[in-house]
Amino acid sequence: MTSSRTPQVGTPASMRELNQRVVLERLRVGGEATRPQISTDTGLSKPTVGQALLDLEQRGLVRTAGRTFSGPGRSAVVYEVNPAAGHVLGIDIGRQAIRFAVADLNGTIVARLDEPNRARSANALIKKVRQSADKAIDQAGLLHADIVATVVGSPGVPDPRSATLHRTPNLPGWERKGLLNELEVALGPNLVVENDANLSAVGEHSAGAARGRDVFVCITVGTGVGMGILVDGKLFRGAKGAAGEIAYLPYGWPDNRTVSEHDGVRQGLLESAAAARPFVEDAVAKGLPVTTAKEVFELARDGDPGAIAAVRDEAHRLAFVVCSVAAVLDPEVVVLTGGMGGNADLLAEPMREALTHITPLNPEIIAGELGPDAVLTGAIATALDTARDVVFDRRGQAG
Amino acid sequence: MTSSRTPQVGTPASMRELNQRVVLERLRVGGEATRPQISTDTGLSKPTVGQALLDLEQRGLVRTAGRTFSGPGRSAVVYEVNPAAGHVLGIDIGRQAIRFAVADLNGTIVARLDEPNRARSANALIKKVRQSADKAIDQAGLLHADIVATVVGSPGVPDPRSATLHRTPNLPGWERKGLLNELEVALGPNLVVENDANLSAVGEHSAGAARGRDVFVCITVGTGVGMGILVDGKLFRGAKGAAGEIAYLPYGWPDNRTVSEHDGVRQGLLESAAAARPFVEDAVAKGLPVTTAKEVFELARDGDPGAIAAVRDEAHRLAFVVCSVAAVLDPEVVVLTGGMGGNADLLAEPMREALTHITPLNPEIIAGELGPDAVLTGAIATALDTARDVVFDRRGQAG
Repeated sequence: MTSSRTPQVGTPASMRELNQRVVLERLRVGGEATRPQISTDTGLSKPTVGQALLDLEQRGLVRTAGRTFSGPGRSAVVYEVNPAAGHVLGIDIGRQAIRFAVADLNGTIVARLDEPNRARSANALIKKVRQSADKAIDQAGLLHADIVATVVGSPGVPDPRSATLHRTPNLPGWERKGLLNELEVALGPNLVVENDANLSAVGEHSAGAARGRDVFVCITVGTGVGMGILVDGKLFRGAKGAAGEIAYLPYGWPDNRTVSEHDGVRQGLLESAAAARPFVEDAVAKGLPVTTAKEVFELARDGDPGAIAAVRDEAHRLAFVVCSVAAVLDPEVVVLTGGMGGNADLLAEPMREALTHITPLNPEIIAGELGPDAVLTGAIATALDTARDVVFDRRGQAG
Repeated sequence: MTSSRTPQVGTPASMRELNQRVVLERLRVGGEATRPQISTDTGLSKPTVGQALLDLEQRGLVRTAGRTFSGPGRSAVVYEVNPAAGHVLGIDIGRQAIRFAVADLNGTIVARLDEPNRARSANALIKKVRQSADKAIDQAGLLHADIVATVVGSPGVPDPRSATLHRTPNLPGWERKGLLNELEVALGPNLVVENDANLSAVGEHSAGAARGRDVFVCITVGTGVGMGILVDGKLFRGAKGAAGEIAYLPYGWPDNRTVSEHDGVRQGLLESAAAARPFVEDAVAKGLPVTTAKEVFELARDGDPGAIAAVRDEAHRLAFVVCSVAAVLDPEVVVLTGGMGGNADLLAEPMREALTHITPLNPEIIAGELGPDAVLTGAIATALDTARDVVFDRRGQAG
């Protein structure tokens, strides 16, 4: 079929393309189906459906999945969306690790790669990301050109106007001007860079603990603290993309009114009190022989009283966050995730206990279900949203 | 004309009604116009526009506004929306005063009444509201039946399921079950009860300091503290209507971790620190001979050092609020309003000063423009949104 870049409304070409869209959408949402079933579901005539299926098959967007054998009459061909018509790439850039996933249009993961993040400069990190992305794509048996959409999760607030990521203190050099352009050069077009806590929220909504929730937040606690906000299935980003930057919640007021920098960590704000490093420092001050947050949680699970006290204190700090967020946003649910937040089995109960004493606004507190894959799951879900349109348009022009 | 309650698509009756809607909308949005102008703007033929205008005139929704005299050819009749086709009632129930406004469909205020609130029970307050509403309607030369929509602003969080207002500690008895039903009995159908801080935000957006702003909050400080959030012109209410209940922001943490009740005021939450009463208590503790917040602000304007210090401390508490709200919502603008917040000339500058030291997220801080009329302006704007449809449907059925 030939398709115009600017189809005229009412011309046969645009009607034909519209019918293809309708049939494809039916197969995506409702699953595999025969020509008569599609005709019934869409209201299109059987010949029209037949022509659309023919077009879609030629364009590689639909494939046959077998034949029906049950029921009276002749068996009919069953059609399904061709999940291999395009692929997406999701990348989660964290302080400790970089994770990669390649998925087909059904969202099925076809390649998965985890790499440690040892980069000490933006250049080194971009190079590492590019090389590992190629490795993951190769592992999937694909070429870079097969990737129709890439979504990168990163700490910080992307600013599209200056092509810059703001507020990424944990990644050296990552705030430099034009970094988003450099990533696009490295990873190709159709690239979206999104705040990692936002993608965790999208992930937990699409395939995790927050399925079907209308107004919820996903609080990530790890090297840093962050929060994604979803309202009616859509990310709420605020006026400049900084919504959910709970690292900047004031903490220790009114007695600690000025914010000072202490070895790169701001005192008087939430991140300086609740992230992994102050948590470990507090545990060490309590006499625990630990160097990582993970060790503190393990000791607490083993019943160590000092570790239990450290975890309880962290839970109280997180209750402070939930109390603040509830007074502003009134979410239905708070999902806990991230390296530390993932220990909701230990944190949620003392958080709830603290909250009943301090606020009448008590959202449900639940554990994330996706663990360390939350950001990646959100990245893939976001990429798939645009990939389907890109594939349809691209294959239309190529056909 | 006769109109069916359930018009069939495609029948002449429903087409006629649809054309009337199109013509009415043109007159509402674009202002007065002649038949040929309306025809050009809507794409409807001149005879169709003529028929629609005839129908709308008979139904009392449109009236003639004169004739054109300029230009060549015969003069033409100019039509405009009939603003008297229906009226709305806005009520602002505050701890100190109850305010009433009656407006026509253009939003022009045709009656205005302010009454002191001396009620010591819900019954007394409902009675007072009902009587004063009748007085205001009478003052406008109208009957109760002429009011097509009523919007009440009140402290608290309306819960439609239980017909109850939650969290109204400053209004005695106002939290009792079924209160919203009682208000509907007193004030008639088409009643909406909305949180007063929310209506202030709507008011400042529709006719005040926040015109054209996409993501902003309006912080009200007075007897209590509250906040309305508008996103893309719509109120954001949260999961259970409690979004913006900043009275429950934790304050004085981590040193004041438990919340105690002290003479009806919760300690450890923002309202116990930043509302009018603690502000006056703080001023008295500073040696000022005052009994009201207004007196403190007046003394500060006169240059009294103690009053200036009290105002600066209040500004720092409000900076804490803005810092918290910015970290969660990232609003473009913060509008200050309410009995105390209205003193933005004194508060905004020390707030900005404090914020530059404590957070990189610095929304613009501006004074509300509507003063004590913010809630009422929001109530009228909200009522007009529904009134226009109500009038069209009602007049359609009666015609």
